[in-house]
Amino acid sequence: MDLDGLRSAVQRQLDAILAHHAGLLAAVGDDGGSLVEPVAKLVRGGKRLRAAFAYWGFLGAGGEPQDVGGDDALVSLPTSLELFQAAALIHDDVMDASDTRRGQPAVHRQFAALHRVQGWMGDDAHFGAAGAILAGDLCLTWSDAALAGGGLPPDALARVRPVFDEMRTQLMAGQYLDMLTQALPLELSGHGAFETAIARSRRVICFKSAKYSVEHPLLMGAALADAPQGLRTSYSSYGLALGEAFQLRDDVLGVYGDPRQTGKPAGDDLREGKRTVLVLLALQAADPAAEAALRAGIGDPVLDAAGVERLRTIIEDTGARSAVERMIDEAVARSRDALATSQVTAEARAALGELIDAATARTA
Amino acid sequence: MDLDGLRSAVQRQLDAILAHHAGLLAAVGDDGGSLVEPVAKLVRGGKRLRAAFAYWGFLGAGGEPQDVGGDDALVSLPTSLELFQAAALIHDDVMDASDTRRGQPAVHRQFAALHRVQGWMGDDAHFGAAGAILAGDLCLTWSDAALAGGGLPPDALARVRPVFDEMRTQLMAGQYLDMLTQALPLELSGHGAFETAIARSRRVICFKSAKYSVEHPLLMGAALADAPQGLRTSYSSYGLALGEAFQLRDDVLGVYGDPRQTGKPAGDDLREGKRTVLVLLALQAADPAAEAALRAGIGDPVLDAAGVERLRTIIEDTGARSAVERMIDEAVARSRDALATSQVTAEARAALGELIDAATARTA
Repeated sequence: MDLDGLRSAVQRQLDAILAHHAGLLAAVGDDGGSLVEPVAKLVRGGKRLRAAFAYWGFLGAGGEPQDVGGDDALVSLPTSLELFQAAALIHDDVMDASDTRRGQPAVHRQFAALHRVQGWMGDDAHFGAAGAILAGDLCLTWSDAALAGGGLPPDALARVRPVFDEMRTQLMAGQYLDMLTQALPLELSGHGAFETAIARSRRVICFKSAKYSVEHPLLMGAALADAPQGLRTSYSSYGLALGEAFQLRDDVLGVYGDPRQTGKPAGDDLREGKRTVLVLLALQAADPAAEAALRAGIGDPVLDAAGVERLRTIIEDTGARSAVERMIDEAVARSRDALATSQVTAEARAALGELIDAATARTA
Repeated sequence: MDLDGLRSAVQRQLDAILAHHAGLLAAVGDDGGSLVEPVAKLVRGGKRLRAAFAYWGFLGAGGEPQDVGGDDALVSLPTSLELFQAAALIHDDVMDASDTRRGQPAVHRQFAALHRVQGWMGDDAHFGAAGAILAGDLCLTWSDAALAGGGLPPDALARVRPVFDEMRTQLMAGQYLDMLTQALPLELSGHGAFETAIARSRRVICFKSAKYSVEHPLLMGAALADAPQGLRTSYSSYGLALGEAFQLRDDVLGVYGDPRQTGKPAGDDLREGKRTVLVLLALQAADPAAEAALRAGIGDPVLDAAGVERLRTIIEDTGARSAVERMIDEAVARSRDALATSQVTAEARAALGELIDAATARTA
């Protein structure tokens, strides 16, 4: 099964899980449909990178589908990860007050719009957030239902469970660390302050993105295949380096990306005031006038297109963008090295190599 | 094991699960502690009713702990339910903007207070909600981890899973139905409008409370014991009737309860504008002056103690309180009948009888 085949198989399982649970929701009343619809729309999108890492993590360790209940059972792991990702995105968008996701209004904005269209009582934004909390909760529980009920044999499931558990707990902690980081004053001038800020930003990357998006899915596939420790260590090296490159690329796209490709408005990360490595490097290298302009514009929720363009130019001129591109190149090289020296199967080596390109491409 | 023994056993498992996950959080950084602390405080409270229903649902069906991996494995089901309940409460309090839970500030209020005390940047209420979303997500995943990793044999787990899944999905749908209900205009004067409103309120009770608090925990215990269909049907009759009585009692306590016993401020349900059966009956029976006073006061977030006292008297005078007490008595009687004619073991019959008293006592 190639990546397209995997994507189709995952989508079929997602459709089946949503249909099953829509039945459970229908027992509650006709209104259940409006709860599941935004979820169904969201899970039709996405690049399925986590699904692919879990899948190739398994095959790369020499795992045989028939040893874990067959192809459908194997695909239940990627499917579960995609549902978990949907839950994380839905709740993250509430926490970040994001407007857009995967080219559509964020789930909480969809519920708020429904509230307005229907002319319901109360605050539409509060209704939207509440609906999205519930929709995310549903995805979280459907994620573990997909894994537990996907046909994997008990011993295989028992091997995967601790990694699944660690992934879920550490992602929440990474998101919390991100929240805390955004809430701290951005002080870069004191002794060691810049280094501390960069270290903190990289720790957020590690837990909110690198482990969650690449390393843990690979390790879940490895656990399913009962892979030897040496291969798991290689997966971690490959995964953490690639995950870092993936997040740094995402940060660049958050400022410079084309909305048609990112599915988010141009410069959205600037409006949200995200303290990415890109932004920190720009602030550090900026002259006083440029720094003042950056501090005034970053985090301004009503920053317009001209303002975004201005900030883009300033960041580019500080050299921060090319510095981040070099960091991406360096992380990609570390990832390729880890893959080259690992004991994965030949087919998986090729697939995981292509996933480096897919995860770090300059177009989203 | 009696109820106190079960409570201790559940608390030991909760402590162990929190300690294990605090270790995973510590890997992310020192800040993880502030994420788990409000959860630890919350799960030390509660009456453990759901835990008890699951436990007695198992024993009442003749289940033997040694057949499902021993006492600790059996207790993992009640523990999982208590963690799920913690998740539901944390997220529900965000959605309802509640201030207090189990005698302490609601989890989102604790995060908001931390934000203020630390003098962090940004909006403290938004930070509080975001922290509570993450804390609730952690409880959801820990609930699943407690059940999956609690030592129950795979075949037993496979029997419990579908009920667990149904419970979680239908609770979210019940909460959504509750949100929708609060957002609709309260129109009681049209033809059949009152009956429609009451039917809707009872449907919320059924899914948000009766099934979730009593029926599903019992059925999970029954599934664990591989109980015959006849007993499951009895459990459903007992559970739905008792669950309805439990929620109606909760509604009465939400208006008339003693804060020292409910753990919530006096009249909190009135301030939140909950459309309980109690409130609907009062509105229906009120004369125009009383109805106007009810409509003005219910849902007023700054309603003071004197206002609460005034509304209490009006509701009492309409006869709604005694009508709800009669409904509770009638539901309790149905529950007792179902228990009396069921095929449960003698010991479980006694315990489930006592749980009727515990769940519907006039003091919280």
